[in-house]
Amino acid sequence: MGRTPPGTRAAYRAFRTLPTRWRDNDEYGHLNNATYFELFDTAVSLWQLEHGIEIRGPKATRFLVVESGCRYHSELRFPDILTAGLRIGHIGRSSFRYDIALFANDSDTAAAEGFFTQVHVDSSGRPAPFAPNVQEILTRIAVVAD
Amino acid sequence: MGRTPPGTRAAYRAFRTLPTRWRDNDEYGHLNNATYFELFDTAVSLWQLEHGIEIRGPKATRFLVVESGCRYHSELRFPDILTAGLRIGHIGRSSFRYDIALFANDSDTAAAEGFFTQVHVDSSGRPAPFAPNVQEILTRIAVVAD
Amino acid sequence: MGRTPPGTRAAYRAFRTLPTRWRDNDEYGHLNNATYFELFDTAVSLWQLEHGIEIRGPKATRFLVVESGCRYHSELRFPDILTAGLRIGHIGRSSFRYDIALFANDSDTAAAEGFFTQVHVDSSGRPAPFAPNVQEILTRIAVVAD
Amino acid sequence: MGRTPPGTRAAYRAFRTLPTRWRDNDEYGHLNNATYFELFDTAVSLWQLEHGIEIRGPKATRFLVVESGCRYHSELRFPDILTAGLRIGHIGRSSFRYDIALFANDSDTAAAEGFFTQVHVDSSGRPAPFAPNVQEILTRIAVVAD
Repeated sequence: MGRTPPGTRAAYRAFRTLPTRWRDNDEYGHLNNATYFELFDTAVSLWQLEHGIEIRGPKATRFLVVESGCRYHSELRFPDILTAGLRIGHIGRSSFRYDIALFANDSDTAAAEGFFTQVHVDSSGRPAPFAPNVQEILTRIAVVAD
Repeated sequence: MGRTPPGTRAAYRAFRTLPTRWRDNDEYGHLNNATYFELFDTAVSLWQLEHGIEIRGPKATRFLVVESGCRYHSELRFPDILTAGLRIGHIGRSSFRYDIALFANDSDTAAAEGFFTQVHVDSSGRPAPFAPNVQEILTRIAVVAD
Repeated sequence: MGRTPPGTRAAYRAFRTLPTRWRDNDEYGHLNNATYFELFDTAVSLWQLEHGIEIRGPKATRFLVVESGCRYHSELRFPDILTAGLRIGHIGRSSFRYDIALFANDSDTAAAEGFFTQVHVDSSGRPAPFAPNVQEILTRIAVVAD
Repeated sequence: MGRTPPGTRAAYRAFRTLPTRWRDNDEYGHLNNATYFELFDTAVSLWQLEHGIEIRGPKATRFLVVESGCRYHSELRFPDILTAGLRIGHIGRSSFRYDIALFANDSDTAAAEGFFTQVHVDSSGRPAPFAPNVQEILTRIAVVAD
């Protein structure tokens, strides 16, 4: 099918260990496809919290997910211990894209790769340029082609 | 950003009512982005079950999701009553793509549009051509450009 | 084991249709035990919203769940269409208990019966007496022994 | 309300670290009550897998949850790192009860305490006595009054 081959850990910039749960498996005995997005979201939220991008409270920077996607390379299943790899693959004035991979246990090859395109919005919900410090933080894990 | 405008109900071929749940909302008070994939999966599974594509049991036809995605046009929130619209946007020999939209309450404009690309696999997990009856069933809701 | 026999619809006062989702099933092919609490929560939230108990926003009445439980009488599985039955089994000055049953499809016998004991809290998180209108609303579906 | 005070780590026999996820929080910004049962289930499943009680596959020992419950002592919220404490509080011929506590971060006092009463069933779904090795394994973390 001409699919891009799965990425490896070297293609990502920040990592986070994410254990699986019994309920992540669906009736087919593997991670349900929605579970991947729960894990992506968790990796992204943890990274933002730890790098000082406040996503809650009165001074929160609010990002809306406008597009997401996932390519499933191989099955994952509870009780796999996953590692999420994170990088920023695109960054503009008010939007950017997180690329996220999930690696099973000690594997160096991604079992799944996905993305979240997020837009920074102001209090009225309209796209607004990043604050300079947010731009700087995001750039730390950027891997951008152009 | 040059995004494709949201689709309307007329662009879909089968519909299913899907109520939201309290837990679908995340801390931002709107549907978490992973919830959309739970709803897509449910709409697709119900349609398959009702059209005689067995997805469970010893004689099950097994489809693996190899890619999924979602564009989020506008926020959804509990207690919205959603309608999922379904169509098949591509069909090959062993793979096909469901396109799924979610409409809030009485809205004719999709709040979100996503897809599942699925591959039919045999008992060893390898891609295998559809049985003729499966091909025929899938074609019933196909809206294919070429 | 001397268990109380399952209740019937006649023992409940308000009803709500709750369809199941593909992801509700776990690897055993039946509803995961946590799913029951998602459904209980949804039935309770819908009933509160429709009877004018505001659970969100600046004027929200805030209830904290302090205890919950469920007895599982018989298995449920996607794509069952469930009916939640609701009643209030205890009401005090600042706390009360919802009893909730889940009925599968057309069954008159509960497949599961659970409860939420909730405490009304003020803005500091301390138990506080119900407003009179809240007390009156809750009493509408009360079935209280003493 | 005369509630039993929260337990401490000393009251439990096996421990497991369980990180929270962004989606565990509901609209109130704290762990949804159903999330607790997902975490209980995960702690129990991991313990069983690691102690040689097979819960999957053709030779699986099958336990059905017949009753569950949780007392919520204090709020938990993402990104708390939780520790689940586990013990067996009752053991009979074909049924037993897991008691599970969740501790937030470094706290020695349980934020929540719950239980799962499970019945061992045979292939027809009827209660059946434990195999001697299962009985022996379960007894390792038993804390039984009588």
